[in-house]
Amino acid sequence: MAPNVSANNSSSVLVGIDFGTLSGRVVVVRAADGAVLAEAVEDYPHAVLSTALPGSDRPLPPDTALQLPEDYRGVLRRGVPKALAAAGIGADRVIGVGTDFTACTVLPTTADGTPLCELPGFADRPHAYPKLWKHHAAQPEADEITRVAAERGEPWLPRYGGRISAEWQFAKGLQVLREDPEAYARADRWIEAADWIVWQLCGRETRNVCTAGYKGIHQDGAWPSRDYLAALDPAFAGFADDKLAFPLSQLGARAGGLSAEAAALTGLPEGVAVAVGNVDAHVTAAAARTVDPGELLAVMGTSTCHVLNSDVPAEVPGMCGVVRDGIVPGLWGYEAGQSGVGDILGWFADGFLPPEYVRAAKRAGTGTHELLSRRAAAQPVGAHGLVALDWHNGNRSVLVDHSLSGVIAGATLATTPEDLYRALVEATAFGTRTIVEAFETAGVPVHGVTVAGGLTRNPFVLQVYADVLRRPLHVTDADQGPALGSAIHAAVAAGAHPDIRAASAAMGRVRRDAVRPDLRDSAGYDRLYDVYRDLHDHFGRGGSDALHRLRRIRNDART
Amino acid sequence: MAPNVSANNSSSVLVGIDFGTLSGRVVVVRAADGAVLAEAVEDYPHAVLSTALPGSDRPLPPDTALQLPEDYRGVLRRGVPKALAAAGIGADRVIGVGTDFTACTVLPTTADGTPLCELPGFADRPHAYPKLWKHHAAQPEADEITRVAAERGEPWLPRYGGRISAEWQFAKGLQVLREDPEAYARADRWIEAADWIVWQLCGRETRNVCTAGYKGIHQDGAWPSRDYLAALDPAFAGFADDKLAFPLSQLGARAGGLSAEAAALTGLPEGVAVAVGNVDAHVTAAAARTVDPGELLAVMGTSTCHVLNSDVPAEVPGMCGVVRDGIVPGLWGYEAGQSGVGDILGWFADGFLPPEYVRAAKRAGTGTHELLSRRAAAQPVGAHGLVALDWHNGNRSVLVDHSLSGVIAGATLATTPEDLYRALVEATAFGTRTIVEAFETAGVPVHGVTVAGGLTRNPFVLQVYADVLRRPLHVTDADQGPALGSAIHAAVAAGAHPDIRAASAAMGRVRRDAVRPDLRDSAGYDRLYDVYRDLHDHFGRGGSDALHRLRRIRNDART
Repeated sequence: MAPNVSANNSSSVLVGIDFGTLSGRVVVVRAADGAVLAEAVEDYPHAVLSTALPGSDRPLPPDTALQLPEDYRGVLRRGVPKALAAAGIGADRVIGVGTDFTACTVLPTTADGTPLCELPGFADRPHAYPKLWKHHAAQPEADEITRVAAERGEPWLPRYGGRISAEWQFAKGLQVLREDPEAYARADRWIEAADWIVWQLCGRETRNVCTAGYKGIHQDGAWPSRDYLAALDPAFAGFADDKLAFPLSQLGARAGGLSAEAAALTGLPEGVAVAVGNVDAHVTAAAARTVDPGELLAVMGTSTCHVLNSDVPAEVPGMCGVVRDGIVPGLWGYEAGQSGVGDILGWFADGFLPPEYVRAAKRAGTGTHELLSRRAAAQPVGAHGLVALDWHNGNRSVLVDHSLSGVIAGATLATTPEDLYRALVEATAFGTRTIVEAFETAGVPVHGVTVAGGLTRNPFVLQVYADVLRRPLHVTDADQGPALGSAIHAAVAAGAHPDIRAASAAMGRVRRDAVRPDLRDSAGYDRLYDVYRDLHDHFGRGGSDALHRLRRIRNDART
Repeated sequence: MAPNVSANNSSSVLVGIDFGTLSGRVVVVRAADGAVLAEAVEDYPHAVLSTALPGSDRPLPPDTALQLPEDYRGVLRRGVPKALAAAGIGADRVIGVGTDFTACTVLPTTADGTPLCELPGFADRPHAYPKLWKHHAAQPEADEITRVAAERGEPWLPRYGGRISAEWQFAKGLQVLREDPEAYARADRWIEAADWIVWQLCGRETRNVCTAGYKGIHQDGAWPSRDYLAALDPAFAGFADDKLAFPLSQLGARAGGLSAEAAALTGLPEGVAVAVGNVDAHVTAAAARTVDPGELLAVMGTSTCHVLNSDVPAEVPGMCGVVRDGIVPGLWGYEAGQSGVGDILGWFADGFLPPEYVRAAKRAGTGTHELLSRRAAAQPVGAHGLVALDWHNGNRSVLVDHSLSGVIAGATLATTPEDLYRALVEATAFGTRTIVEAFETAGVPVHGVTVAGGLTRNPFVLQVYADVLRRPLHVTDADQGPALGSAIHAAVAAGAHPDIRAASAAMGRVRRDAVRPDLRDSAGYDRLYDVYRDLHDHFGRGGSDALHRLRRIRNDART
């Protein structure tokens, strides 16, 4: 059934759905100008499974992070109707649906898309569940994948900065093969949640170029060879051919029409355009108007993802990947990332603040982050005498090593919570600067920096970033970036705009030069950054294997 | 006036007074067997001056730590009568008074012993006040003292492990000369508080061999030469001759009889024996019965001081000093130290515990240290994946560098307060192991380890130390070690026992083998200790100057 509202009608709206780490966010957006008419947030009831499966008390291994597909469906079932109701418009004005997902979040399914964990006899097997992006237990497999690729000189390895991450499809798949070969054998598909959710919406299996390139290992039209995969493990030889291979779809394309089942689930009209799957950070580029070459977008949330389009292909050490058409068709899309940012600040503010700080925040009517930020902002740069390494959740770029861990140096008996909080904020800014410098050193120009995501609500954090980067920051809306980006892609899929660039120009929103650097403070940060780089290279590049030894000691002690 | 109770009378008692960092403790002790009849604790009303002088809002420079002489007198005036009253005995049973002090706590006085800060016109000058042991602002002077001594091949330098500490008499004195030459010129004396308090008691100026050797630079019967001092600064040439030089008294000797003024102040009988001054840790050796060669005593409080007698003189890199007769006449006394131990645990437990921990401790009716210790003790060794460097207050042994600062490595988003607490406890134990190994490597045998001080109240801490050191621990009474030791020295000065060894045997108290190591846990700690040593040598021995750079950045930012 065709949509009953034409694509260029000024009353047309799109639904964008952003599947995050702990919840899904649904927005209803006007096709003409990107105005967000309403939104709804739907928490995942089971959040992240890292200690035990539902109804089980068997402990999960360290670094495990799983989710439940049914929690994703809940966003469709409850979140979409809520957002529509809040917008106060009829569903008949909706002309398309777009989605984005955390990535690499990947799951094993049968040939009809049923998640393995929903099959009889598989509910108690951890490897039958979706592995969330921050599932870091496949580090040994990732190391092996990198080592064997380097030994064989696999041509795709430099496209990933020379290292394949434990977070990605192949490492996680190889872990399943090694640790639960039965589940591996039963999985007809190994599919990104980004593509699985589109399958649920339009009833057709598709695969998008973005996750295939960044989270799979798809380059120059091909997956890694059977020979290479067999060298990892003979039983892994068919991994790509059997479980991944499927024609890839360009971003912004129409994956299909909304199925009758999905229409019933969501209350949206059957047959409206469903855009191909996408990744939360990458789709935000459309919302942030960073679809032109040299415009770096940093999506700052629990972790930070950096995406950057360029006309030049290059091999940038330690980036996550470069993928042709990976963000916008026709350009080389670069991705880099920091695996802990808001998560690290939350860990500290939630776990290490004494009662007088919590009370002071309450008295002031603010959150603890606001209190810490205000107190930290009152200090001169460097007065805390601290430098931290922001590796509490490992390091994605530029070291691509999830066995690393956090370091704090310079503590004294006078060190306060705001000192440590500030040092952690600065460490994440230094991590971003390391990434920007890696791009520039490799010949990929960075003209501007735009920030999006939840952390942009914190003016202290933004000021530190501007000062550390010595650049003005452009800032997009804190909450709705990915969901708005998904709606923009939906608008393209529905034909309301001719392509992503045009749709981004019409519907995206950003405050240019919203935060300007204070260059006197920049000079102070330069000195701290020098120390950061020393520690970074010492602990991250082989000067010391102390952090790896600590991780082994920890894992030995726990098993 | 002679004491009216004979020294060998079974009812004779001694008064021991321990001048600590924040308070003075007075004990009344039976001469015959060391039984403590009563004690009184008197807080210093002004505690430690580190931010401003009394009545001033001018900020003090970083790393400043001063005290008020009047606070010390308050212990004599109020504490001694309280202890006597609590003991319920007549003052006429007291045959002697002994004292010990933190060290190097040192002050400028006039020729009659008046503290400079009590002279008209000097109350607002920081350098007129006693500098507490943990005043660390003289690090540049200490570095210079060491460098010039090394260049000139001064023979005494190896006796101090090759480095002169910023905590000691010469560095602190040179700082006064450099920063307040008028105060320096006005000071007829530069005297340890340990000797100053004895002067207040008996009205006679004396100097003890212990502080002269360990905190001054008195070796082989001489102070550093005028030539050497002039090489530091021509105006410093007379420092030793003019302000320090005085005949030295052996430990356990009688400095004089209690003066009429002091008798009036304390309520003790005029003329009773006053023992020569001593240092808190060193005097505890008598109380802990560690006066024989090879018996290491660790006095574990806010910081830890290690003292060890030996018949062999040796040059141990990084120890604080070796002094002939420095602890017991006739032996070589070694001192080493850790500049932060209980202080570091207190910093963390007081400053970084979230409300739910504070509430849980309250509910359990315990302190936060007990709660953290119990939770930490439940973990397998190494399960936290952390190693810390216990340098939050600098490093005394074996690096002798107060510009160092604390490091924590291995933190993840799952790291809890009890994890960090345990890592800090372990770091201090690793610091002790480093010191024990330094002695043994240099050929100074360590037969046994005895622990004393406030931290011995924590069984978790003691178990970690026993496991890390792979040795049983002998444990003395937590609170009264120094004051009891002072009373033992008073008993010798009063003639109740022939010498310190005999008095220690009669009056000291220790539980032998009170804590035994669990050697399975020792194996786990060995692995963590390897990582500790790597970080220790990297940050402390020139592999990285990161911590020194952070200190410079901090100090620049604050001034």
